[in-house]
Amino acid sequence: MTSTKEILAGIDIGGTKTAVLISAQPPEAITRVEFPTRPAKGPQHAIGLIKKSLHEMLAAQGLTAASIIRLGVSCGGPLDRVKGLIQSPPNLPTWDDVPLKAILEEEFQVECLIENDANAGAVAEHRFGAGQGCQNIVFLTMGTGLGAGIIADGRLYRGTIDLAGEIGHVRLTRSGPIGHNKAGSAEGWASGGGMAQLAAQSVAEAQRKDKKTLLAEHVRTGKPISAREVGAAARKGDAVAIEILRSTGERLGEVLAILVDVLNPERIVLGGLAMRLGDLLLDPARRVMRREALAQSARVCAVVPAALGESIGDVAALAVAMGI
Amino acid sequence: MTSTKEILAGIDIGGTKTAVLISAQPPEAITRVEFPTRPAKGPQHAIGLIKKSLHEMLAAQGLTAASIIRLGVSCGGPLDRVKGLIQSPPNLPTWDDVPLKAILEEEFQVECLIENDANAGAVAEHRFGAGQGCQNIVFLTMGTGLGAGIIADGRLYRGTIDLAGEIGHVRLTRSGPIGHNKAGSAEGWASGGGMAQLAAQSVAEAQRKDKKTLLAEHVRTGKPISAREVGAAARKGDAVAIEILRSTGERLGEVLAILVDVLNPERIVLGGLAMRLGDLLLDPARRVMRREALAQSARVCAVVPAALGESIGDVAALAVAMGI
Repeated sequence: MTSTKEILAGIDIGGTKTAVLISAQPPEAITRVEFPTRPAKGPQHAIGLIKKSLHEMLAAQGLTAASIIRLGVSCGGPLDRVKGLIQSPPNLPTWDDVPLKAILEEEFQVECLIENDANAGAVAEHRFGAGQGCQNIVFLTMGTGLGAGIIADGRLYRGTIDLAGEIGHVRLTRSGPIGHNKAGSAEGWASGGGMAQLAAQSVAEAQRKDKKTLLAEHVRTGKPISAREVGAAARKGDAVAIEILRSTGERLGEVLAILVDVLNPERIVLGGLAMRLGDLLLDPARRVMRREALAQSARVCAVVPAALGESIGDVAALAVAMGI
Repeated sequence: MTSTKEILAGIDIGGTKTAVLISAQPPEAITRVEFPTRPAKGPQHAIGLIKKSLHEMLAAQGLTAASIIRLGVSCGGPLDRVKGLIQSPPNLPTWDDVPLKAILEEEFQVECLIENDANAGAVAEHRFGAGQGCQNIVFLTMGTGLGAGIIADGRLYRGTIDLAGEIGHVRLTRSGPIGHNKAGSAEGWASGGGMAQLAAQSVAEAQRKDKKTLLAEHVRTGKPISAREVGAAARKGDAVAIEILRSTGERLGEVLAILVDVLNPERIVLGGLAMRLGDLLLDPARRVMRREALAQSARVCAVVPAALGESIGDVAALAVAMGI
C-alpha cells in the first residue's frame, strides 16, 4: 500500500449506465467498472455502487483512497458545479439536488469536481481527441437531448451560470417536435428524442399509405423507436428510416450553421448519436451547414465525429478529475 | 515638443462619418475631429483627411507622432486584422483590400491595430460602459447591419478567423427581408436595413387600406425610410411606425434568445439603433427574449443600451489603441 497521490478517479453517470474509472495522469490505461444506474431505485442505489466499486478497484491495485489525486464526475445537467449538486437531470428523474460532491468527498477524503457531460466531453475531445491542437471547438452531444460544450481560445467557456451551449433550446421552427419542453426547438428536431417523435410520425404515415418499413414492427411493441433502430433499418436500405436520418441530419445542419455563425469554430466535434449514425446523418448535416452558414466561416470549420468514440464518457470524467 | 509616448490615437471609420481622436490613456478627455467619409470618392479621400487631421491635432497640442503610444482603428468588417486590410465592408463600397495598417504605420511610425467595430464596441462597453465588472457580455451593434462582439470570461472572443459574433447571418425564418444576402436572416429582420424593407412594405399596405401614416411622405421622396424616421413617427403616435418597431423588436428578441441560450451572458449591451430607439424597440425585444430563451439563463441576463451612448465609436477606437 502506498499513500502517494498518483491516480485519477472518474465517474461517468448516465441515465442507463454508470462507469467508475481509475487511471494514471494523463488518462491512458483506464481500469473501469460499469453497472446499470437504475434511476428508478433512487440516487442511493447508484451512489452505493459507486462507493463500493471504487474502493474495490483501488484495493485490487493495492491502493487506497489516499492515492487519489482528484475525483471527477461527468453527469447530465442541470447541475450546480460550485455547490456540487445534481439537480434532477431529465435522464435521472429521482436525482433531486443530490449533494454528490459532498457525499464523495466525505467518503474518499479527496477533492471532487463535477461537470456537465457536454462540457466534460468538450474538454476530453480538446485534450485527447478530435479537437487536439485547436483553439476553438464546439463539442455537440446528441443523445436523448442535444447540448454543446464550447472551447474558446483554448479554454472551456461555461457562461455566467454554467449554462452556455444550450443550443438544444434554440428555436428552429414555429412548431414541430418537442425538446427542452419547446416545440420546434433544435433538440426537438435533432436529437434521439426528436428522432423518436419523427419516426412515430413517419411510420404512421407509411402505414396510412400502405408503404412497407422495417420500423413498423417496433411500433407494435408500443415502445418509442430508438435512433439505433432507425440507423439499423437505414443500413438495410429501409426508405422510411433513410428519410428520417436525412431529415434529422438536415436539421442538425441548421444547428451547426448557428454555431458556426456565432462562434466561428475551427472544428465541431459530434458525440453520441451523431457519432454512431455516421454519414447517413452527417452528409445532409454538412450540406445544410455549408448552405446556411457564412461561407468563409463554414470553409474553415470541419465537422467530425468524436475521436474518442465510445470511450468519450470515460475520458470526460477523467478530464474533470484532471481539473478543467 | 516632447517625444515621450503619452497619448493614444484612435480612428473610427463609418460609412457616413470618420472621427479621428487623441486621448490620454485610459480615454478620458478626448480631442476629436470628424469629417464625412465619402466612400464614393475612394479610400484615398478619407485616408488623406485622417493623416492631415491627426497631424494637425497633434501639432495643436504641441505634440508629434512620436508621442503616440499606439494607433487604433475601429471599422466595419470584413477586415483582416492580422494583415491590417480593410476588405470592402458593405458601408465602404470602394474600400477593397485597403492596407490601412501599413499606410498608417508608415505615416506615423507607430504600431497600428485594426479591429471590427462590433469587437471594438464590445471591449469599449466592457471596460468603460455597461459591461463593467461583467465576465460575459455580448455587444450587439444594430445599424444598417447586425453584428455582435463577444466577451467571454473577461476577454474578447474573436473566433478562428475573426468571424465570431455574426449573429446577423443566422436564419430566423424560411423567407423574409434580406440581410447578409440571406432572406429571413436575423439581419434581414432586425437591423436598420431590415426596418427599411419592412417600412416600405407597411406603408404600401397602409396605402392600399387607405390608412394614414406619417411615413407615407418619405415614400414619395423615393428614398428608403430610415430607422430614425420610423422612430420619430412612432414617438408622434403613428400606428404604422409603432407596429414596425414592435415587429422589429420582437425579432430582435428572438436574436437575443439565441445569444442567451448559446452564450449565457450576464449582460447584452445594445448599440446603434437599439440604443437610439429605446423602449419602443426594447420592450417587445425583452418580452420575446424571456419567452424564447432558457428561463434560468434569461433571468440572469440584463438587456441594456450601451452606456457610452453616441461616444461609443470614439471609445471603441481608443480601446483598440490600448490593445485588446
